[in-house]
Amino acid sequence: MPSYTAPLDDIRFLLHDHLDLTRYNELRGFPDASPDVVDAILEEGAKLAQDVLQPLNRVGDTQGCSLENGVVRTPDGFKAAYETYTQGGWIGLSGDPEYGGQGLPAVLSLAVGEMMSSANMAFSMYPGLSHGAYSALHQHGTPEQKTRYLPKLISGEWSGTMNLTEPHCGTDLGLIKTKAAPQEDGSYKISGTKIFISAGEHDLTSNIIHLVLARLPDAPEGTRGISLFVVPKVLVNEDGSLGARNGVACGSIEHKMGIHGNATCLLNYDEAVGWLVGEPNKGLRAMFTMMNEARIGVAMQGLAQSEPAYQNAAIYARDRLQGRSLTGAKAPDKPADPIIVHPDVRRMLMSQRALNEGGRALLYWLALQGDIASRAQDAKAREAADDLMGLLTPVLKSYLTEQGFAACVDAQQVFGGHGYIAEWGMEQFVRDARIAMIYEGANGIQALDLVGRKLPANGGRAVFAFFGLIDRALKDSEGDETLKPWREGLVAARGDLEAATQWLMANAMANPDEAGGAAMDYLHLTALTALSYMWLGMVRTAVAKQAGGGAVGAAFYENKLKTARFFLDRVLPERTMRLARVKAGAGNLLALAADAF
Amino acid sequence: MPSYTAPLDDIRFLLHDHLDLTRYNELRGFPDASPDVVDAILEEGAKLAQDVLQPLNRVGDTQGCSLENGVVRTPDGFKAAYETYTQGGWIGLSGDPEYGGQGLPAVLSLAVGEMMSSANMAFSMYPGLSHGAYSALHQHGTPEQKTRYLPKLISGEWSGTMNLTEPHCGTDLGLIKTKAAPQEDGSYKISGTKIFISAGEHDLTSNIIHLVLARLPDAPEGTRGISLFVVPKVLVNEDGSLGARNGVACGSIEHKMGIHGNATCLLNYDEAVGWLVGEPNKGLRAMFTMMNEARIGVAMQGLAQSEPAYQNAAIYARDRLQGRSLTGAKAPDKPADPIIVHPDVRRMLMSQRALNEGGRALLYWLALQGDIASRAQDAKAREAADDLMGLLTPVLKSYLTEQGFAACVDAQQVFGGHGYIAEWGMEQFVRDARIAMIYEGANGIQALDLVGRKLPANGGRAVFAFFGLIDRALKDSEGDETLKPWREGLVAARGDLEAATQWLMANAMANPDEAGGAAMDYLHLTALTALSYMWLGMVRTAVAKQAGGGAVGAAFYENKLKTARFFLDRVLPERTMRLARVKAGAGNLLALAADAF
Repeated sequence: MPSYTAPLDDIRFLLHDHLDLTRYNELRGFPDASPDVVDAILEEGAKLAQDVLQPLNRVGDTQGCSLENGVVRTPDGFKAAYETYTQGGWIGLSGDPEYGGQGLPAVLSLAVGEMMSSANMAFSMYPGLSHGAYSALHQHGTPEQKTRYLPKLISGEWSGTMNLTEPHCGTDLGLIKTKAAPQEDGSYKISGTKIFISAGEHDLTSNIIHLVLARLPDAPEGTRGISLFVVPKVLVNEDGSLGARNGVACGSIEHKMGIHGNATCLLNYDEAVGWLVGEPNKGLRAMFTMMNEARIGVAMQGLAQSEPAYQNAAIYARDRLQGRSLTGAKAPDKPADPIIVHPDVRRMLMSQRALNEGGRALLYWLALQGDIASRAQDAKAREAADDLMGLLTPVLKSYLTEQGFAACVDAQQVFGGHGYIAEWGMEQFVRDARIAMIYEGANGIQALDLVGRKLPANGGRAVFAFFGLIDRALKDSEGDETLKPWREGLVAARGDLEAATQWLMANAMANPDEAGGAAMDYLHLTALTALSYMWLGMVRTAVAKQAGGGAVGAAFYENKLKTARFFLDRVLPERTMRLARVKAGAGNLLALAADAF
Repeated sequence: MPSYTAPLDDIRFLLHDHLDLTRYNELRGFPDASPDVVDAILEEGAKLAQDVLQPLNRVGDTQGCSLENGVVRTPDGFKAAYETYTQGGWIGLSGDPEYGGQGLPAVLSLAVGEMMSSANMAFSMYPGLSHGAYSALHQHGTPEQKTRYLPKLISGEWSGTMNLTEPHCGTDLGLIKTKAAPQEDGSYKISGTKIFISAGEHDLTSNIIHLVLARLPDAPEGTRGISLFVVPKVLVNEDGSLGARNGVACGSIEHKMGIHGNATCLLNYDEAVGWLVGEPNKGLRAMFTMMNEARIGVAMQGLAQSEPAYQNAAIYARDRLQGRSLTGAKAPDKPADPIIVHPDVRRMLMSQRALNEGGRALLYWLALQGDIASRAQDAKAREAADDLMGLLTPVLKSYLTEQGFAACVDAQQVFGGHGYIAEWGMEQFVRDARIAMIYEGANGIQALDLVGRKLPANGGRAVFAFFGLIDRALKDSEGDETLKPWREGLVAARGDLEAATQWLMANAMANPDEAGGAAMDYLHLTALTALSYMWLGMVRTAVAKQAGGGAVGAAFYENKLKTARFFLDRVLPERTMRLARVKAGAGNLLALAADAF
């Protein structure tokens, strides 16, 4: 069975050395996140993840959830673990103190979330979805709704869900059919069928707060006629106690490729009582304001599966004796050398490692932009951070889930035949990680969001700001011999991204299909450029901290530079392929008639 | 549930138009394979695959195999399907007529095998493994062994297995511990444990003929002390009737990520009676002579999963209404456009399609080299074909299984959330396809085989011959305006491959780790070059047949050219990345200490 050790050194390097949260003490909540507090939280979180959640990961996979008479049972041990989880106050780590949250930085919450998800993705989705419901209500709910629901979502006494998809529509929410009939008391009766509702029904909490997209009777067609409703599974009395069961029931749970420990439900709404959240017909907008947060969460899941997959592959590669090094026996006293001596095994391990470290840096940096966007005093600073979030969130959601999945596949490959056997646990990482490429907007949708919405928004303000950041980093590193290779890598990546951007500007206006055809490769090129930017910065930090004063041991910085080199030599060369594909245009995609496929 | 339609047009294009089997009538068996006979066989094979095997694919996945008291039961319907399969004489299609085979070309047998594997990978492994055992005995068995076992392996009355792996060794067969104790009557008593034995025990046949690697008492250590034995599950009397049960028993069956319908067994040999096949201590060599055949079979499995995954993704993309085309509604009378209008959906479908068509061309061409290598009159022709087989078999095994898996993942992605749900069947393609990257030599081993063994063999004779083939194709297409883009693509790919080959020659001698570090990227570059060579040839064939006389309809050739364009614009650009990685050297892989991972 796989093990998991929270990568505390790397997380501390990022939060303390590289991002240096203490520089952001003007942000609300950040003064409370002193390095000591951060370390204490990380260590407690690591214990919970390693000791409580991880041992349930395979149990959850093999048992799955069951549905009987409308009641969903989670796998053995999940309920006790959930109690431990909520008692630790983990759901409200970055939540609003007004409703019981601790108000700490979202970037810290993300780091904790990564550990939980690495230990047990299916389990951690339960509190994760509560967090989504919390955010929707926190941003768009009435004061009364907030008072009623937020404290119990934050404490974990109740959980939450997001209800968007219906059998005939997932991506195209304009097709939603679920109806909301207004009642005289100001409530609505919600009727319809929602599918793919993660954590839609379970036995962990006494109530589940569903956030549901539905149509008012007079709603315009399409996406402009969708409203958001809060629909508790059990109605809540005026005094906050639980009342009658509402008209929502779980009709079935899905048999899925992975995340078996999380119940994916079909929910039937039959005149369920709900209340409007936000303005009528503005439900999709309300959803979109939360999307960045949710998508960063999914990007994190990609990384979160890749990390333990990598760890276990590395352990196996050090232990498994098979064959001899091409340059002569490295363990002559043993019947064979450990397979980690083989360069091709190293290639797989280093790919995973470079993704984990680079992806984590980018992800945490982006989460910090989220903190700035929501907590900075200065409107300009908020806007700039929000622009970066908007631009890079779809990039990370798509890139990290795709590459995280690929890393899990590679980690499984290191195990040879044993990687294919369920008991070894490596194939579960692959199956679990697979969903992250699909949900919360399939990766192709992220690419379209990037080129169709985020890139042209405000005359390209976000991407120009991104180029500006890069240019500053290049200027700051000018003439530094140590940094030179990474600087050159970033110059090259920036050049390719600029060329691709110009190509898009020149071609996508005249023919939007050109934007669609270039989207995924442009996204990857953006990711590679952003990673180059991160690695240049990390190398700079590592070199500086080698002189002393760092948060982690000296060997760590040495190793960081080696992984940085691998990124430069083996990952970044992909950029030329991406640019070539962008420039190839959409003609080769559209030439074939639809019925010729 | 997914459907499958055998790609008969593409297969006929390859066998009739492109490879034109009638040109090879000097090869034994080929005169019997007239176009009419080939078509009749393909059509019958397609029916069997579509009507009998495919409907059992999901049954096999959900039921799996069960083990009770040493007896393995295959899923419902497998036994009846196996009877239909054997009655059709499919196992012996290219088998030796002396033992009941039909002696037809191996390339035709591969085409049929692809259809069977597309329809039901787990099922088709049972006869597939019999074929492997047949080949081992046919090449290395005594006349008596051949007479005893081959007719019943070919008829399917008995099945066969290959027993190589033990708990502590898969890749490194030098570590094998299973013992063979000589008996006075010339037989041996075999004792030991073998794992991962596909089709190792089942209820489809009355006997199972195990081919087992084991050590003689006086055997030298390592790979030079391994011998091959035939060990029937049930002893065979002199008259060919079945006698007592032999000392081999199934200890357990594995819980696997996929191919649930095929029993992967742990087999305990406890003084089981066996007989030596081939010379003592030359067992590995006997195995290696079959490796090309087995590895081409696994390469085929990668392609064989990708094909139906693609077909179903295309059907779904045409049916699923979601969103509108970026260039205006294409189905204004419907609530949304089918998702096939979106360039990014096309990108995924075209990738799969280009892989299937290009991979199939390369695979069939290589199988034809196998026919030449074993059936040509001329020793030089046999040698040249054998060289190409040796060089490109590891390339195809690794490339087609990796890209075939990736294509299944992409096809699943087209389905959005439904792709993750078991009932839709797309995730089964992903899980089933995954094993092909691992077994019959993990893909990293294929890459090492290529750069460490096949490339330097005979002073690089094989790769120079490969360059020679390319140069002839370039010469033959000189000045042809239609072929120009593909010609230029091949020139570029050839240039990159030559540069990579020179880099290897210059660096790998001095430091073998450089060969190991470059191996996988060199393999991909070889695959891209070989595919370029195939596409240039196919374009040439398609253009010629557009004028008339082709085996398939006119629209087919038109579409072939469009897919060829996609390959050129979107697949081939990967070559620059592969060359850059080769040239980056192994330093970035080996810098990190083993215990720093």
